[in-house]
Amino acid sequence: MNIDMIRAADSRLEGKVRRTPLLSSPFLDEIAGRRVWIKPECLQHTGSFKFRGGWSAVSAMEPELRAKGVLAMSSGNHGQGVALAAARHGAPAVVLMPSDAPRQKIANTRALGAEVVLYDRATEDRDAIAARLTEERSLTLIRPFDEPEVIAGQGTCGLEIARQATELGIDKADMIVCCGGGGFASGVALALEADAPGLRVRPAEPEDFDDMARSLAAGEIRRNAKTAGSLCDAILTPQPGALTFPVLSRLAGPGLAVSEDEALRAMALAFSRLKLVAEPGGAVALAAALFHGDEIEGEDVIVTISGGNVDPGVFSAALERFGD
Amino acid sequence: MNIDMIRAADSRLEGKVRRTPLLSSPFLDEIAGRRVWIKPECLQHTGSFKFRGGWSAVSAMEPELRAKGVLAMSSGNHGQGVALAAARHGAPAVVLMPSDAPRQKIANTRALGAEVVLYDRATEDRDAIAARLTEERSLTLIRPFDEPEVIAGQGTCGLEIARQATELGIDKADMIVCCGGGGFASGVALALEADAPGLRVRPAEPEDFDDMARSLAAGEIRRNAKTAGSLCDAILTPQPGALTFPVLSRLAGPGLAVSEDEALRAMALAFSRLKLVAEPGGAVALAAALFHGDEIEGEDVIVTISGGNVDPGVFSAALERFGD
Repeated sequence: MNIDMIRAADSRLEGKVRRTPLLSSPFLDEIAGRRVWIKPECLQHTGSFKFRGGWSAVSAMEPELRAKGVLAMSSGNHGQGVALAAARHGAPAVVLMPSDAPRQKIANTRALGAEVVLYDRATEDRDAIAARLTEERSLTLIRPFDEPEVIAGQGTCGLEIARQATELGIDKADMIVCCGGGGFASGVALALEADAPGLRVRPAEPEDFDDMARSLAAGEIRRNAKTAGSLCDAILTPQPGALTFPVLSRLAGPGLAVSEDEALRAMALAFSRLKLVAEPGGAVALAAALFHGDEIEGEDVIVTISGGNVDPGVFSAALERFGD
Repeated sequence: MNIDMIRAADSRLEGKVRRTPLLSSPFLDEIAGRRVWIKPECLQHTGSFKFRGGWSAVSAMEPELRAKGVLAMSSGNHGQGVALAAARHGAPAVVLMPSDAPRQKIANTRALGAEVVLYDRATEDRDAIAARLTEERSLTLIRPFDEPEVIAGQGTCGLEIARQATELGIDKADMIVCCGGGGFASGVALALEADAPGLRVRPAEPEDFDDMARSLAAGEIRRNAKTAGSLCDAILTPQPGALTFPVLSRLAGPGLAVSEDEALRAMALAFSRLKLVAEPGGAVALAAALFHGDEIEGEDVIVTISGGNVDPGVFSAALERFGD
């Protein structure tokens, strides 16, 4: 993993990815007590940053291999990103999803042309199913985060942030990134190391699923006790990745953990102040910036809204509880 | 009103306005049966395109006059645009609002530093109150649409659309603009006449408030029978403007009228497919593109989402009825 791979991915993504803006609101600045800049990857194709990694990985494949097809395991966002990238390359895609993934994510993945295979998180072995599918059908597995070309693709978001921060005259800031396995955070960290070294990545996670924060603090990989039971479905991973952890161990500051209520409150504020739809897992970085200011340094903080693929009922519940 | 005023406004807005992207979704294209491009002015500062006109008008004033203060009459979005523009120029702002305007718009206008004066739509004479305020306090009235510098500011959105359409290779399309008094539509129409003459403005309005459509069809100004009673509060005006109607009469195609349910359905689709928060009045152009395809010509249609300042309860109701 290095910056050259990210720059190469960025060239392949040119004209294919949406270059998202960097937004702000005086109302959010006031809550945070500092300037808050928002990178809205919910506006990315397929509604999350995952399209970047999906396109990077699919576009980097040898054409004859790509023509046989790709396989993604995903609670939803990675699957959609890979599905659309594969479809636009004319390649078949199979997405292995837990049967309790949000309905909208399952429906969208199918609508983007992928074959969806569902499994039961509690009783079935996802990796065994994946191994069988790749072998029987000669598919190439694209891992959601521990995959160099995927990390390179997510890193392109970091290149954009570095450019945007420079234009705004921001040379020092905490860069809070929504974190599951760490693909997004590590890609962004590598990009910022090269292009904006004063911006330091801080992974944000839900409480009880803060494996990355605890692993960074311990200096070695720690697992979560639970693997389900949070609305932040997009970023529930058992433990940091073997590729992503060393990158973040070297480059990231301490992790931040937010409560589910804080994530829902951040969603309600993204609605009212930014006119953006954030999903719970996509709102944890904004929640950290707004409600954990005592753990943040400096006058500026930049956050990702990593995705917006949320069921209407969950969104309405967040507005009902925190919308005023 | 001419293109030079719009270009001058664009120079004054540089670095102050958000240059909004042009978005799309394969899911929306499928519903519409053509390519749909969305200009999301809900992402503009203060949550609507009105900041453009507000900044244009305030920045064009003589400094000594500006220092005495400005007055806006507004159901909400124009008031917020003027309030923020005035605040950033260090000028006082008074906003005269109907007492039944959405709570969030009243609260936001105050939070942006303006003094809000409420009046009763049914029993009080807004214009008389405004006349008294401007005289007693030496305020300059900034009209919401029949004001040359306001129209020029809204026209800057048209300059951006012309550039973006050119980059996408679109040289012919219907450009559907959410329309109240016609300030936005006429500004955009003048910009497109100069920079993208193959793009034709089509005003979109709510049913029962389609004064512009009926006026364009009749060739003379027609009033609405009703002045209240729609969720599309942002675009309920009694009749087309004296400045805006001649511009649209010369440049616009036939108007489109959508039902309130169609507007709410478009809001739900903007939520799920674009991750954007649209207010009812801000969704009428998208609704027209999606549900009135038989009244539209050509392969490409461009629409504005003109604002996103909606109460959470109204938004949740739209999701509950049309979110699946």
